[in-house]
Amino acid sequence: MTLNKILTQIDSDQPNAVARLLALLKIASISTDPDFAPQCDAAADWLVDALVGLGFDAQKRPTHGHPMVVGHADGDGPHVLFYGHYDVQPVDPIGLWDTPPFEPELQDMPNGKVIRGRGSSDDKGQLMTFLEACRAHLTVTGALPCKITVFFEGEEESGSPSLIPFLQENAGELTADIALICDTGMFGDAVPAIITQLRGLLGQEIVVHAADKDLHSGMFGGLAANPARILANIIAGLHSDSGRVTLPGFYDGVPELSDDIAGQWQSLNFDHDSFLGGVGLSEPAGEVGRSPLEMLWSRPTCEVNGITGGYTGTGFKTVLPAIASAKISFRLVGHQDPLAIRDAFQDYVKSCLPADCTVEFTDHGAGPAANFATDHPAFDAARRALSDEWPNAAVFVGCGGSIPVAGHFKDILGMDSMLIGFGRDDDQIHSPNEKYDLNSFHKGARSWARILAGLGQL
Amino acid sequence: MTLNKILTQIDSDQPNAVARLLALLKIASISTDPDFAPQCDAAADWLVDALVGLGFDAQKRPTHGHPMVVGHADGDGPHVLFYGHYDVQPVDPIGLWDTPPFEPELQDMPNGKVIRGRGSSDDKGQLMTFLEACRAHLTVTGALPCKITVFFEGEEESGSPSLIPFLQENAGELTADIALICDTGMFGDAVPAIITQLRGLLGQEIVVHAADKDLHSGMFGGLAANPARILANIIAGLHSDSGRVTLPGFYDGVPELSDDIAGQWQSLNFDHDSFLGGVGLSEPAGEVGRSPLEMLWSRPTCEVNGITGGYTGTGFKTVLPAIASAKISFRLVGHQDPLAIRDAFQDYVKSCLPADCTVEFTDHGAGPAANFATDHPAFDAARRALSDEWPNAAVFVGCGGSIPVAGHFKDILGMDSMLIGFGRDDDQIHSPNEKYDLNSFHKGARSWARILAGLGQL
Repeated sequence: MTLNKILTQIDSDQPNAVARLLALLKIASISTDPDFAPQCDAAADWLVDALVGLGFDAQKRPTHGHPMVVGHADGDGPHVLFYGHYDVQPVDPIGLWDTPPFEPELQDMPNGKVIRGRGSSDDKGQLMTFLEACRAHLTVTGALPCKITVFFEGEEESGSPSLIPFLQENAGELTADIALICDTGMFGDAVPAIITQLRGLLGQEIVVHAADKDLHSGMFGGLAANPARILANIIAGLHSDSGRVTLPGFYDGVPELSDDIAGQWQSLNFDHDSFLGGVGLSEPAGEVGRSPLEMLWSRPTCEVNGITGGYTGTGFKTVLPAIASAKISFRLVGHQDPLAIRDAFQDYVKSCLPADCTVEFTDHGAGPAANFATDHPAFDAARRALSDEWPNAAVFVGCGGSIPVAGHFKDILGMDSMLIGFGRDDDQIHSPNEKYDLNSFHKGARSWARILAGLGQL
Repeated sequence: MTLNKILTQIDSDQPNAVARLLALLKIASISTDPDFAPQCDAAADWLVDALVGLGFDAQKRPTHGHPMVVGHADGDGPHVLFYGHYDVQPVDPIGLWDTPPFEPELQDMPNGKVIRGRGSSDDKGQLMTFLEACRAHLTVTGALPCKITVFFEGEEESGSPSLIPFLQENAGELTADIALICDTGMFGDAVPAIITQLRGLLGQEIVVHAADKDLHSGMFGGLAANPARILANIIAGLHSDSGRVTLPGFYDGVPELSDDIAGQWQSLNFDHDSFLGGVGLSEPAGEVGRSPLEMLWSRPTCEVNGITGGYTGTGFKTVLPAIASAKISFRLVGHQDPLAIRDAFQDYVKSCLPADCTVEFTDHGAGPAANFATDHPAFDAARRALSDEWPNAAVFVGCGGSIPVAGHFKDILGMDSMLIGFGRDDDQIHSPNEKYDLNSFHKGARSWARILAGLGQL
């Protein structure tokens, strides 16, 4: 019955919660632009004040860039670390905004009310759902059901340069039983989702060198090596006809889905026609025999992100290029070893070269996949809490991209993460007219209130 | 004995011949730069005066661009058309010239005297070898051994925009028994060469379209088509492991070398190690089982001249490109049909596309190879004349590139060409410090005197 009172408190306090969020959204905390450093600082101050007002022991913590905010509050249950970020994306192209990005407002839209403004979804609105849940617990019971450490970053939209050293220097203070990260979305519009696996990333740039200068394709063509052809052969040879990556050992450590996860994903009835149709495509292009969601979430990939060589301007130039280059990335899953795959890739590339050509490699990151221990009871508690709040049962999903902070929590703090968020696909994060559904904000706070209550009982 | 007198006349008149060439080289007839139009006009006037001085009926002939120069002189033998061009390349980068490009001079160099200045080799020095040969014939005998039409172009270095219409409009006046083109070089430093086959060229640009925008390779990678991979597959599939082009019908009309030509090429002892070594390479990269000279001169090729797609800047961006494109050219030989090959290429490319991708083609020219009738007695006469003049016997060679004027003479005037020139590989044409060996200029004039005498006896 206490939980019901807490949820009712969230409902009745909603106008005030919206007012608080709007106040935070007015602060133009664009982290990538040095001109906005004072606003980043102001947003950190605002959050410290909000946390102190809730009874947290909270401070702004300096870095070489924008400050971190860390706050602690005691509670009887397990210790959780909650992560969000207070910085926002730039607003360009400003001309496409219907309302000024930092004059946020509640708007009535055909599908319900939305909070409009830069950062409303990514990530100020999301992080505030957690603070509102804490506020309701404290208002109704005078206590929190868990020991909580709140950790807000101010550089997420600009590459997180201070994150790793800060985690390393403050590992003892920040390590908890589990991390809660609120920076993701629902599955579709209505299915609450807990991301339990993130693909890793290996980035490699190769430059194939042939002649020491561009050559005339008439005078040399047929006799001299063409690095663009060699590069095309390298890329073409990376996949088999069935879409599998051909590097030796590439699939070592790639797990099959558990029946539980496979069943949950099956239940999502993922509409790949509509997903691909949204970007003008229709054909799943990955491994033969794999479902579209596997292709996106649980299978490793090899993709060309960029390729260039020779004359690429207007018209035609009959040149044999001296060099050709490609940026190639591998999305990794399970326990694939990024460094072993890097070695296999480089060996393969070298094996494709004629004796008179050379290749230069540049590393662009090598991070393993993150797989969280869904058998930890916190996962089940969170799934039940979310399923109680929303019309559809919550599911464990994957994420094709990489959310680096979750990997850093695992590597540096030895801590699993639950990535739970309430964004919608149409929130236009990073774009003009960003919004957060009032429904996301409201039921997000209710969701965290339930999750905290559930975790408190473990 | 008359020929000996003519050759002696060339020897004794050499200082005057050099002075005449230096006068022409002082005129900065850069055709691509409109600021130099008066100089182009002046060079044409200079040549008209020179021809009239020799007794030719010569005029400057207007075009939409720079004027042509046409001159006629009677003679008893066959009718020959001699072609050269009076325009020159720009001089940038001017800072790399050791002497001003339009203040030409005779310089003593370790390997002999050279005429230094823009256009000395390409093509003023070369075309003047022919006029000096005519002058010597006229001085000694008072007549020319052939009926001669001289045709000088002023737009060769800027794409020859007026050439085709001028040939069409003046076909009757310009058509002769054979064309002599003096705009090429020796084989190596000492072997006089007559080019008897030129490769044709088919240029195709393809743009592969997949999604309607660049995609995030984490969010879409594995499921969405990657046009850079598709493009790599297209390019890789164009050649077999043995280096042959795989397009159906591609080798239709590709002749084997005649025993005569094969023997001559064999006798050249082409040093492909040194040819490739000069540009930092060492491995012949063409069809298995073909000699390096065949790869360069008599075998068709397919080359990638440019390729681009996705993110090509500094660093890394995990993007799935929306498009990827390539510029691809085919060098054609024998009777390969450019249009049939274009169709086969486009059909092949389309067959490589997934159903949800499209391709756009842009034509960049389609011209067949030129093969001249070496059984015409003029070829044998010229070969004997050149062999008499130089320490090494003359050879019929191929040319990997395309020299468009020879093709136009064939197509529009129905006339075979003999491409004979005295340039050396180190003449630095199109580059700073262009030069023409005095030996090239002197023995070039003697060569034409012998060739004209030989042709006059046919």
